[in-house]
Amino acid sequence: MKKIFHPESVAVIGASVKPEKIGGIIINNLLAAGYQGKIYPVNPKYDQIKELKCYHSLKEIKKNIDLVIIATPAATVLGILDETVGLKNPPKNFIIISAGFAESGAEGQALEKQISDLAQKNKLNIIGPNCLGVINTQNGLNASFANKNFLSGNVGLISQSGAFAVALMDLGKKENLGFSYIATIGNKTVVDEADLLEYFAQDKKTQAVGIYLENIKRGEQFLNILKRTSQQKPIFIVKGGSSPKSQNAILSHTGAMAGDEEVAESLIGEAGGFYLPTTFDLINNLKIFSHFRAPLNNKIAVLTNAGGPGILAADYISQSSDLTLYEFSEQQKNNLKNKIPEASSCSNPIDLRGDADHFRYELALKELAKIKNIGALLVVATAQAQTDIPLIYESLRAAQKYCSFPVIPVVMSAIEQTTKEKMPNFVEPSCAVRALGNYYLWTSRKKTKLVKIVKNKINTARQKQSNHYLEEIKKHGRPILLANETANLGKLYTFNILDSIRTSSANPANLSYPIVLKIDSDKILHKNKEGGLIMGIKNPGELSSAIDQLHTKFPKTDLIIQKTVKPGLELIIGLKNDNNFGSIIMLGLGGIATEILNIKIFFSLQNNLQYIKTKIDTSPLSKILAKQRIKSETVAKEISKAITLASENPSLKEADFNPIIFYPDSPPIAIDFKVVLK
Amino acid sequence: MKKIFHPESVAVIGASVKPEKIGGIIINNLLAAGYQGKIYPVNPKYDQIKELKCYHSLKEIKKNIDLVIIATPAATVLGILDETVGLKNPPKNFIIISAGFAESGAEGQALEKQISDLAQKNKLNIIGPNCLGVINTQNGLNASFANKNFLSGNVGLISQSGAFAVALMDLGKKENLGFSYIATIGNKTVVDEADLLEYFAQDKKTQAVGIYLENIKRGEQFLNILKRTSQQKPIFIVKGGSSPKSQNAILSHTGAMAGDEEVAESLIGEAGGFYLPTTFDLINNLKIFSHFRAPLNNKIAVLTNAGGPGILAADYISQSSDLTLYEFSEQQKNNLKNKIPEASSCSNPIDLRGDADHFRYELALKELAKIKNIGALLVVATAQAQTDIPLIYESLRAAQKYCSFPVIPVVMSAIEQTTKEKMPNFVEPSCAVRALGNYYLWTSRKKTKLVKIVKNKINTARQKQSNHYLEEIKKHGRPILLANETANLGKLYTFNILDSIRTSSANPANLSYPIVLKIDSDKILHKNKEGGLIMGIKNPGELSSAIDQLHTKFPKTDLIIQKTVKPGLELIIGLKNDNNFGSIIMLGLGGIATEILNIKIFFSLQNNLQYIKTKIDTSPLSKILAKQRIKSETVAKEISKAITLASENPSLKEADFNPIIFYPDSPPIAIDFKVVLK
Repeated sequence: MKKIFHPESVAVIGASVKPEKIGGIIINNLLAAGYQGKIYPVNPKYDQIKELKCYHSLKEIKKNIDLVIIATPAATVLGILDETVGLKNPPKNFIIISAGFAESGAEGQALEKQISDLAQKNKLNIIGPNCLGVINTQNGLNASFANKNFLSGNVGLISQSGAFAVALMDLGKKENLGFSYIATIGNKTVVDEADLLEYFAQDKKTQAVGIYLENIKRGEQFLNILKRTSQQKPIFIVKGGSSPKSQNAILSHTGAMAGDEEVAESLIGEAGGFYLPTTFDLINNLKIFSHFRAPLNNKIAVLTNAGGPGILAADYISQSSDLTLYEFSEQQKNNLKNKIPEASSCSNPIDLRGDADHFRYELALKELAKIKNIGALLVVATAQAQTDIPLIYESLRAAQKYCSFPVIPVVMSAIEQTTKEKMPNFVEPSCAVRALGNYYLWTSRKKTKLVKIVKNKINTARQKQSNHYLEEIKKHGRPILLANETANLGKLYTFNILDSIRTSSANPANLSYPIVLKIDSDKILHKNKEGGLIMGIKNPGELSSAIDQLHTKFPKTDLIIQKTVKPGLELIIGLKNDNNFGSIIMLGLGGIATEILNIKIFFSLQNNLQYIKTKIDTSPLSKILAKQRIKSETVAKEISKAITLASENPSLKEADFNPIIFYPDSPPIAIDFKVVLK
Repeated sequence: MKKIFHPESVAVIGASVKPEKIGGIIINNLLAAGYQGKIYPVNPKYDQIKELKCYHSLKEIKKNIDLVIIATPAATVLGILDETVGLKNPPKNFIIISAGFAESGAEGQALEKQISDLAQKNKLNIIGPNCLGVINTQNGLNASFANKNFLSGNVGLISQSGAFAVALMDLGKKENLGFSYIATIGNKTVVDEADLLEYFAQDKKTQAVGIYLENIKRGEQFLNILKRTSQQKPIFIVKGGSSPKSQNAILSHTGAMAGDEEVAESLIGEAGGFYLPTTFDLINNLKIFSHFRAPLNNKIAVLTNAGGPGILAADYISQSSDLTLYEFSEQQKNNLKNKIPEASSCSNPIDLRGDADHFRYELALKELAKIKNIGALLVVATAQAQTDIPLIYESLRAAQKYCSFPVIPVVMSAIEQTTKEKMPNFVEPSCAVRALGNYYLWTSRKKTKLVKIVKNKINTARQKQSNHYLEEIKKHGRPILLANETANLGKLYTFNILDSIRTSSANPANLSYPIVLKIDSDKILHKNKEGGLIMGIKNPGELSSAIDQLHTKFPKTDLIIQKTVKPGLELIIGLKNDNNFGSIIMLGLGGIATEILNIKIFFSLQNNLQYIKTKIDTSPLSKILAKQRIKSETVAKEISKAITLASENPSLKEADFNPIIFYPDSPPIAIDFKVVLK
């Protein structure tokens, strides 16, 4: 990866003398940003481009080439790559700008497959195709066809969409947000977000990483890298493609298939990343993390010349689940009152009144600087008649140095900073408070010891047994398992499955009523929905008519009987296959509650009991468990079993315990276990 | 009110030659904005201020004065008002800029009371005190000490905080958002938000109204005016002071007492206003409503040169509860494909690809203009190498004219418009989609017939009876009613209250077990919390020991017995007194569900059955009711009874049916009814 961002030489295939052509823009960008390495334009049509000698082919260069940028039509790309492989010192690193691959239909897909095969065979690093290129502001490498309009700084940006990167670079200029590395990955046929995240995370200059994704290519690896790196660097992810319709757009945009957003949000959060809903949030978070020091604790003070906006800031802090308002002691209030005019209010928010100039702000800032246990200070300023906004900005810049806590500007004004060096600003308090809350969260997480996550151990003997059992079933062409089969599978993994007996072998007189009657079919998965389940059967007479009813509705289908279990908390534990992350386990509320309360928690297969328990304890489910006096550990143990089941049986497509009933004083029992094979 | 915004003459008491003084700024503002009326500076110290003759007193002017602005210290204000009352043609309209009244403590509070008494006696209109003044951009009246930095336009702004108004005016300049009227109301001792809303709503120039409030002074009037006006003009409210701590700041800021935010949000929404969480949302909503035509329907198309941001836009539209993505027909897609290059994707979002220039945008815009059933078009543009942002803006401005639907720009760039006339822009898709959703909602509401809201009829005979009954109880100095008393009150309003009998008059052998035993105390309100309730008593033996237990815990307290009712849906219906709105009715989930699901719906006393039912039907409670097969009308009827109870009995401080149990097939029954008198 290093040679992609720090090449000593770059060849541009498809270089052009025409400044509006992509090959022309790339040459201009490489020349404009101060890149010190060698640049070799390649195009049979020219002998010279700008001040550079232009080569007619790669072969002609006869020098070591660290990075090859390809900006020729899709149809030519495979040939070019093939040619490089045959060179004496074949280059290993490529950026394929060209579009017209997987995103454009079956033909392009086939072409892309050939490229990725070739790359694998020859160990080529390829960024793209269908991307904008990469930028390293540290060495002036602008190997992209992006506009030159952006600031250098300490934010690493990875974007599946070139346009998204362009928007962030451009808006970053307005927001005083600068970048260390920018990588657009397009169809990411070889290099993907996981590779780049790993590379950016170890870079000293990079303080925060922003990522825009539409799908996640290697979910497990990405999560592992995220887990490893998210304590060192804050990582923010915006994900497009949450709606079925925009998933169509993704297919034609970067040729990807989007996964379930809830799952992505949950698993990215589990791995320590920040999953953000909007570009606005991304910019605000990057601004605070890249420029301001970390909050010292979660107690936030507000200083303002603006009554209403100051009150709003206090509201947002109070409402935040991560932050709280700093409480000034009487002594501290008196000290403040001695320094700033009597009319000012010295609680929190400290209201300096509308006629405060920058001198009054400075008096307050210097007094506040003496208080060592403020976590962060939000300074809300509006441009009232007596306010000189540029001078207030200068006071705030100075305060960053003499205050031990960060001083966050919320200047609600169109008036800009006039100095050369500029600070990020927040246009209103709520976005600053949200970002600051994340900063505090990340800082406190950083201090805690990371729970080491180990994959559940595979019991190879059991795995062999269960894989064989499922294979046998599949041989009969039945993807849906019957009740006795799911019971066998569940019991193998120590689940407590409620017994069921076929009506054909049951003696109605000997059953302990009330009972439940349901169909047992390898064709109908959702018995309840299809009307294949009758509950509360009280006696043999009712049973007989229930049997008739189901036999009429589902001819030639076996029926099974289960006893009615005592009421408890109905949960659902399900295994599903996610487009981004593969096999995952879902825990949700069952029964009537699901209709109202959509609580779902997702777990990756890389998990352990302690971590599963923590995740349950910090979810809304914890309240329900507490109320029903059910230990979260009891639930966590069942999740852990499900993870083992999933890990040992990759042939499972879906497996749902629905419901599995939990009790305060007895072991959980699974009433229904559905299994579908791949 | 008209003379405040359209005065023919203005006197400024406390006018100053010093430009930094408030009295100096006001004179400068009046002179600078083109106001054509007479200006009379008043200050005994000067004979002339700028080009104006300065009067030594109001009396000296001897002309009719439409508006008097007072900018002298608080202590002088009452004397000045007193003096005006004695004039031959006493002025009736005042703006009191001066601070130092209710917001500054008991002394100021007393002073303000004297002013409001004087105003009431002499029918004076007073804006303030402790405000920034008012602005009318239509006649150049800047009767404020605000910075002159703002645009004129069609937004009416009412702000309890002067600084909030300043922030919005200032940011409005950056956002191309202009104002018709601006009024800051400060302590609003006479004129309040209700008066101003009524005035702004009838103004032809004003297209949308933005309001910042910390408390609502006359809740009932405000809601009535909001109901009357919210179909004519969209009204947006941001409310500060939701946290207990910021409520302290409000007390010292505008001397107000904030109410419950949940209640405010619910009742403002009920009255057709938009309750917005942030200043950012307020600005975005005002931008879209003030500049763009209304969406024709809820089907939104997206046109973009930016893959990722276009996908995000489609996501937000799909996730919106009010909007949906427009679906192009095959014919429409083909027409588009004929006009724009083959590489472009012609589903929705229509992706013109990164190399789209403004000509390509125009081709697409003109083709889209032919499609008459698009509701609105979101145009997402990023500044890629080939994009000329100012030209794209020009294409979008032109498209507003030839498209029947609104064309909303989401230009994600720091590059500004270069023409003199500028359009509001949205910096990223999510904020545009949220605002557009509100625009659609408002437009469709505008078309529906407003449900006429009539206060429940007062039954004066019953009212007399119940008021008398409660007075008698209060005479004994008992604010908390006993069980038989609440039962009597409840039955008077046709509530079905579960019978209870004293243990002293019950024969344990004759009870139908299981039963519930509870204390009946006029001192302990929350029986359950205090341990004064034992459920599930199965026989006389258990009853006897339960009685012993409660007698030990609550000596000298009467005990009552209730039968156990069959399980159903436990709801809470409560009357509470809100700081902003007075008596209101709350409907919430009872029992275990409250711990998890905090569903609360609030109703003002101005309501009728149809409206109550609609509000329940559109709340999350509707799902629970449906699941349990309980008609929302059944619940609405009980709410209506509670409204009648509250309307007829203003002496009630709190009254809670908790729980009241609802069934699919039998009438609801209130298990416990607590009443507290004022």
